[in-house]
Amino acid sequence: MINIAIIGYGNLGKGVENAIQENSDINLVGIFTRRILDSVTPMFDSSNVYPIATLKNFKGKIDVCILCGGSKTDILNQAPEILKNFNCVDSFDTHAVLPEYLSQMDAIGKQSKTLSIIAGGWDPGLFSLQRLIFSAFLPTARTHTFWGKGVSQGHTQALKDIKGVKCAVQYTMPNKVAIKMANNGKSVHTTKAHTRLCYVVLDGTAPADIVKQEIVSMPNYFKGFTTLVNFISEQEFNKKHNGKLSHGGMVMQAGTINDKSKTVLKTIIKLNSNPNFTGSVLVALARACYRYVKRGKIGALTMLDIAPVDYSAKPRDILIKELL
Amino acid sequence: MINIAIIGYGNLGKGVENAIQENSDINLVGIFTRRILDSVTPMFDSSNVYPIATLKNFKGKIDVCILCGGSKTDILNQAPEILKNFNCVDSFDTHAVLPEYLSQMDAIGKQSKTLSIIAGGWDPGLFSLQRLIFSAFLPTARTHTFWGKGVSQGHTQALKDIKGVKCAVQYTMPNKVAIKMANNGKSVHTTKAHTRLCYVVLDGTAPADIVKQEIVSMPNYFKGFTTLVNFISEQEFNKKHNGKLSHGGMVMQAGTINDKSKTVLKTIIKLNSNPNFTGSVLVALARACYRYVKRGKIGALTMLDIAPVDYSAKPRDILIKELL
Repeated sequence: MINIAIIGYGNLGKGVENAIQENSDINLVGIFTRRILDSVTPMFDSSNVYPIATLKNFKGKIDVCILCGGSKTDILNQAPEILKNFNCVDSFDTHAVLPEYLSQMDAIGKQSKTLSIIAGGWDPGLFSLQRLIFSAFLPTARTHTFWGKGVSQGHTQALKDIKGVKCAVQYTMPNKVAIKMANNGKSVHTTKAHTRLCYVVLDGTAPADIVKQEIVSMPNYFKGFTTLVNFISEQEFNKKHNGKLSHGGMVMQAGTINDKSKTVLKTIIKLNSNPNFTGSVLVALARACYRYVKRGKIGALTMLDIAPVDYSAKPRDILIKELL
Repeated sequence: MINIAIIGYGNLGKGVENAIQENSDINLVGIFTRRILDSVTPMFDSSNVYPIATLKNFKGKIDVCILCGGSKTDILNQAPEILKNFNCVDSFDTHAVLPEYLSQMDAIGKQSKTLSIIAGGWDPGLFSLQRLIFSAFLPTARTHTFWGKGVSQGHTQALKDIKGVKCAVQYTMPNKVAIKMANNGKSVHTTKAHTRLCYVVLDGTAPADIVKQEIVSMPNYFKGFTTLVNFISEQEFNKKHNGKLSHGGMVMQAGTINDKSKTVLKTIIKLNSNPNFTGSVLVALARACYRYVKRGKIGALTMLDIAPVDYSAKPRDILIKELL
């Protein structure tokens, strides 16, 4: 059995707790939370909940910690500390600082003789893997990623942070014409390949036109994209948009081999629950982490570095017989 | 530069020769053939052609041999001999004897201090990889593979081997209803998921009804499948069906996570030239083989064992920055 801990108990923590039920070689030592224990009810009676401050007492009892906090502050603060005592995997996804974070974790892991696998999940994660193998197998073709239709947590948060917004949600929608262009080997910029559909409830402290202007001009998040802003009532929001967790997307590589023979490779995923699937990938990643540790690997890795055979609970000879 | 040799110069050998043009870190030492040299014209002037008997003289000058012969006899005969002196990759696809062939090659590689990566290409190969990661990330869901529409080399050969058949082709076609069932998490047997469409030209030595009976009752190949047999003229065959190399297929994993949240993962490929794409994958696999050898790995591996980062010509830090 591989002993794992869930660090942080939001949607992703619950997703990991769910996924553990499907993996009989994984044992949940406990859920570790910053919150008051009485306020945390795990989904399964067998799940123990502990204060995050007691994590160090479990040294030697946990093989891998799965970090389920947000990328913005939680992981950047927690991960370097936790890695000093435990192996860990995370779903860090702040793209701009990924290489820097990887170097930092690699140095800590090498000093502490622990292993971290960063940026797990589906994007980064499964989709990174697809982009890599597709571009290695069809090297001169273009790689495109389309996201949606689904809720972007980051863009939703960006809307909520605007003065005058009471609640909001942002759906990322891929553009069908862009998908067709990519399929024909043409290059499409991400901003032209997606529409950002926003539903916003105002709190009355700022006028709608000012809020809208702030949204559509926000750099990195909305500027340059076709952004549709709909102001709706709180009642409609709660009825139609609250708690939506579905997402999905596509990685596509389309082109030719030596200017001949058209080739299209694509991976499409549809998820009713983004955090449940991300949690499921992180559990497989924790298994791979455990095995790499057993072989003496320390430092920090990504899903690009992991031999696929190590994600599966099944022995290699069975995988070769059944899946090769 | 990684120095590779093409062993065998049929469609797949040409596919590898094509793919090398797209990979600037790969140098083609030569094409090695059993045929009379004068009868072999490489596609590119820069490609040298040598008799297969001279291969041993190139020891130390070739990093990896790419075996481009057929699975039925060529690879099983050649590979164990070649591995005694050279690292090699192949596209062996006779499923029933894969584990046995892997063991044999592993023993030879360990004795000769060489490395073999077997069963590369798209199925087995890219699709094996997808089956593995999809089933690791969604462990209780069903995995389905659909092939086609495309020409199956194995089934085409099986038709040609029947007495009374002058020429023939077999298209494998996926069944749309089966794809829909798989998408809804239901299990479909391969025989119910595909139609086998045969075009056959008779040579006059056996009557059509006997030939047809022999086709539809052939175990492993056609028995149990919906098999459609069309007898056509040689003229029509040459016009519509000769030299067809297109193929494709889909791997799909659809199900739920802990009986909740429906999840669908699928990879779809469409290839105008099956051998060109297989050749392109084998070139990336030769690169991975070269790198594993540099790290001291010997024996035999499969694409399930290879860290994805090793397929790409680009350095790891660039891949992490651009693709993670």
